[in-house]
Amino acid sequence: MTIKDIAAKCGVSVSTVSRVLNNQPYVKQDVREKVLKVIEEEHFVPHEGAASLARTQEDSIGVVIRGIKNPFFNEMVSTILKRAHELGYNTYLQQIRVGEDEIAEAASLAKSHKLKGVILLGGNFDRTPEEMKQIDVPVVCCTFSNIFGGVSSKDFSSVCIDDEDTAYKAVTYLASQGHKKIAIVLPSVEDKSISELRYKGYCKAMEKSGLDVYDDLIISTGDYSMEAAYSGVKEAVENGADFTAAFGISDLIALATMKALSDCGKKIPEDVSVVGIDGIDMTSYFIPTLTTLVQPRDLMANRAVEIIAQIIEGEENGVHEIVDAELRIGESVRIL
Amino acid sequence: MTIKDIAAKCGVSVSTVSRVLNNQPYVKQDVREKVLKVIEEEHFVPHEGAASLARTQEDSIGVVIRGIKNPFFNEMVSTILKRAHELGYNTYLQQIRVGEDEIAEAASLAKSHKLKGVILLGGNFDRTPEEMKQIDVPVVCCTFSNIFGGVSSKDFSSVCIDDEDTAYKAVTYLASQGHKKIAIVLPSVEDKSISELRYKGYCKAMEKSGLDVYDDLIISTGDYSMEAAYSGVKEAVENGADFTAAFGISDLIALATMKALSDCGKKIPEDVSVVGIDGIDMTSYFIPTLTTLVQPRDLMANRAVEIIAQIIEGEENGVHEIVDAELRIGESVRIL
Repeated sequence: MTIKDIAAKCGVSVSTVSRVLNNQPYVKQDVREKVLKVIEEEHFVPHEGAASLARTQEDSIGVVIRGIKNPFFNEMVSTILKRAHELGYNTYLQQIRVGEDEIAEAASLAKSHKLKGVILLGGNFDRTPEEMKQIDVPVVCCTFSNIFGGVSSKDFSSVCIDDEDTAYKAVTYLASQGHKKIAIVLPSVEDKSISELRYKGYCKAMEKSGLDVYDDLIISTGDYSMEAAYSGVKEAVENGADFTAAFGISDLIALATMKALSDCGKKIPEDVSVVGIDGIDMTSYFIPTLTTLVQPRDLMANRAVEIIAQIIEGEENGVHEIVDAELRIGESVRIL
Repeated sequence: MTIKDIAAKCGVSVSTVSRVLNNQPYVKQDVREKVLKVIEEEHFVPHEGAASLARTQEDSIGVVIRGIKNPFFNEMVSTILKRAHELGYNTYLQQIRVGEDEIAEAASLAKSHKLKGVILLGGNFDRTPEEMKQIDVPVVCCTFSNIFGGVSSKDFSSVCIDDEDTAYKAVTYLASQGHKKIAIVLPSVEDKSISELRYKGYCKAMEKSGLDVYDDLIISTGDYSMEAAYSGVKEAVENGADFTAAFGISDLIALATMKALSDCGKKIPEDVSVVGIDGIDMTSYFIPTLTTLVQPRDLMANRAVEIIAQIIEGEENGVHEIVDAELRIGESVRIL
């Protein structure tokens, strides 16, 4: 009697038996009981290494990482791999550039490796149902949600912050420190993605704080790179843009904003205050340390794996979890 | 007649036929001629997609990335994936923490995915022949070389900078700017790894420049993390260590050194000058921009793939290439 025989007798996968044997979560209670009953009836003694054997032969999940140079994602990958391993899943990593097609990549990975599910670490917010259908296994969007594409919320899962609300908090914090002329540095005000959502949060916060949004304050730089943010801010300041605080919609953009301001002879925070969103490790070593809204990276990484495991084990798709970003006060903001 | 039939007739792998069809390098001239001859004789017309089909079924290489949070490696992964794809290889990525065993991981990856070769992106310099033997396919060490472990240089390949010489250049540059009290910030003076080699380069440069090395100037911080470097430098300065310049043996260590100095009230470069090694993108956005010796990342990534491909195609193992790091002048060094 092997683990395979037990699996066959129960009508479940070897991985499921392995998870029951190892007391791991994400096995439905009735399945768990059935497996334990058969194990008892058959006087089955698991062979050492059976669990790991099962892992190399079965149930794999794919992780498609979008944005090669994004330290934010890199810091999450190890947590995803660790949690997947704990839950008995094999993992396949794929790294793609921001411009590349994460859906096509995930679909091909799922096919070639017979994956049971895919975690998209970063991706587009506006994929259509037709596009999403290319991936024929469950998908969990991690750090974002496909909210612009018209895909039914039951057909995918997600775990992420509320982008609009987080931007709202960042800008409200600057206003609470006395700033009135608050600029936003962002790729685009309308990209059906993070940038558009955080722009909405900025506008809402400005309005609620009774502050005017005028053209000079909106520094659209075209893309998410540090290079673009640096050039955009430098040009704006050289053209006379007048603000005492800047909200960079990501840490990388906020750091590039600080550098551009510094190169224009502005001191941070004496002349201009800066806030970001993300909480990447490097921000703590900048001079000055960046004040930022910290995304709960480990929580999102763990939940993404747990949600995909749940769905693979038969729970319903359509799990959407919003997590909180927390303000970490650095040295980049001063009271005006 | 399929690509498989051609391969069988030539006594080569489907991947090799695919590479010949796609005019890719790393096929020996006699093999290429033989394949082309059979293709002509058989009037073989390659089926569209045959090359990609061959890729998903054959010849895979593994990439084990050591150091999850090291932007230096992350910036190289995409180049490795791209070059491998161009040469017709499938890739399997594995990411491990610095403390984990890259050899065991590579060995297990090679077995479970029937890899033809492995690239180690970062690793220990002192693996013994017995340890290395766990991996039963060719290995290319990328960004380092296994020089302390007693493994015959014919039994593995490598592409990396000369650590001792690069450190020598960094310190000689500081000396050329008039600095005499030059500190080194490093994990350990004796770790049979990068740290020990760069320490040797530091000592050699100090000696050649006629400068004294005394205890206060050697800031050993225990590990490669920014946290350790930050605490180590802060403690040294608080205990009265007296230097006008510091050589951080990696960019991350140099950046943490700048932050620690700044938090001790020292201005960079007015009070202390700082130099690093690596050239990670983020260094250009620090205030001040870090002066550093830039490793040719793309070159190393491309060469690692090309060397492993060569060996898989039958060339001899034992290729060891030393590449040059180039000084990039930033704003972190002043003339004394």
